[in-house]
Amino acid sequence: MPLSQFIGIIGLGLIGGSLALALRRTRPGLRILGVDVDGGALKEARAARAIDEGATPASAPLSDCDVVVLAQPAGALLDSVLPVAARMRTGAVLTDVCGSKEAVCARAAGQDRIVFVGAHPMAGTEFRGFAAASPGLFEGATVAVCPPVGADGDRRAAVAAVKNLWTAAGAAKLLEVEPAGHDSAVTFASHLPYLAAAMVVESLSDVAELAPLAAELAAGGFRDTTRLAGDGTVGGAAALNRHIPAAARELADRIRSLADQLTKDPEKALERLGRLADARRRMRLPPARTGK
Amino acid sequence: MPLSQFIGIIGLGLIGGSLALALRRTRPGLRILGVDVDGGALKEARAARAIDEGATPASAPLSDCDVVVLAQPAGALLDSVLPVAARMRTGAVLTDVCGSKEAVCARAAGQDRIVFVGAHPMAGTEFRGFAAASPGLFEGATVAVCPPVGADGDRRAAVAAVKNLWTAAGAAKLLEVEPAGHDSAVTFASHLPYLAAAMVVESLSDVAELAPLAAELAAGGFRDTTRLAGDGTVGGAAALNRHIPAAARELADRIRSLADQLTKDPEKALERLGRLADARRRMRLPPARTGK
Repeated sequence: MPLSQFIGIIGLGLIGGSLALALRRTRPGLRILGVDVDGGALKEARAARAIDEGATPASAPLSDCDVVVLAQPAGALLDSVLPVAARMRTGAVLTDVCGSKEAVCARAAGQDRIVFVGAHPMAGTEFRGFAAASPGLFEGATVAVCPPVGADGDRRAAVAAVKNLWTAAGAAKLLEVEPAGHDSAVTFASHLPYLAAAMVVESLSDVAELAPLAAELAAGGFRDTTRLAGDGTVGGAAALNRHIPAAARELADRIRSLADQLTKDPEKALERLGRLADARRRMRLPPARTGK
Repeated sequence: MPLSQFIGIIGLGLIGGSLALALRRTRPGLRILGVDVDGGALKEARAARAIDEGATPASAPLSDCDVVVLAQPAGALLDSVLPVAARMRTGAVLTDVCGSKEAVCARAAGQDRIVFVGAHPMAGTEFRGFAAASPGLFEGATVAVCPPVGADGDRRAAVAAVKNLWTAAGAAKLLEVEPAGHDSAVTFASHLPYLAAAMVVESLSDVAELAPLAAELAAGGFRDTTRLAGDGTVGGAAALNRHIPAAARELADRIRSLADQLTKDPEKALERLGRLADARRRMRLPPARTGK
């Protein structure tokens, strides 16, 4: 199936804005409808020629779209699944970019008007809004794609349309994954690292008199941690991830036990940390991509 | 005071090896004695022409050195302060690279044979050993320099010699700081981020069946977190930092409270996370340096 002729992107922030810019570049024939509650974002997106038409959610011609992409912050995104589906025409495809997939896919399964194919592009920066959007944001990225739910229509074509969309946006790998497996893995791959980093930054904020010296003494680790804590798109998704509270409590227990061990048996604590450093090296993750 | 003519570097790992390579490049007239318990490291350092002479700790001619730099792992470094000082000649300068300064400077204050000037270069990578050493490791780095302790000799000259050493190695900024202030700030700038990241990696290691999918779904945050957990040089220093156990317990409490809040009042949790993301952006940290 060729990429649809008229695509609606709801939410023109970092992700939605970058998607519009990327599609504009690789699929010049595509008509893009940008939808945002914020008139300023619509104006910016029009000025950057990222969209052909701009509209607020209430007035957006969603029934004309072949594909609609939900790209709002996680909570708003979840709330909009059913209302948006109800306004689309039968046979059209709805997809999203949320970093938690169980809640969103389950919500979309509660209607049978359109086929919904949940997706999650693994890309982001610490910056927000259309101003931070870049056509190269998804270049080389992995995109998780969940099984279709909702209407009984042409589900195979719907999945192909969503995959086609992300390939056009620059994705290097499309990973088919069940929502529950996705959310379990993302708990460790993204949400828990983010929440831990955010709490480290909160600790520092509470001893504000130390912050200037800490910033001066910041080596790469601090920069990485605080950059992670600054990624505002992750929090909302983490809040929808049902695996998070238990995993976060377990992480708290580990940190407490390590603190106790550092006091009572530092040798053993250092062995434990050394094993983890070795485990990390065995992961052989790809090197960091250079930011824009 | 010109940079000393004969310098001993004890510990030819990432930091000591990089220091030798950097000095070799910018101070070709300097004679460098490399000291390591590991014959393999001595051999590698000689082959790379990083050192003029190599010796094991027992046989090293420390009494001939104008400056000796302790660059072993934190625990071994602390244990060697007094034995090394006892073998140096009066008027020589002893310094170190440990990431915790209170314990090391207090130990060195317990002798009056030589002047000790504690230092801490804010640089590191996730890799270890001389094989990972690079002459550019300290390029542009900040180096914390503590007040001189120990002998009453020419303390001003001793501080100048240590500063001169790091400037020659590529440091862009020398920051004079008290050991207690240093350790408090580094708690947040380095040790706590590292320990939190290590515990996230430990969490993932315990659900090994999820690891492949988590690695596939890893965006930048996971890479940053696991890279941080792989920095083996930080753990030893964190174990010597007396501020760590309390700070780590407090971090555990924060993570637990956030988990509870995400369950009971997600809106409030998201507000809390949003404020932190804003705080992070206000920090205006320098961009990440490109690693090798």
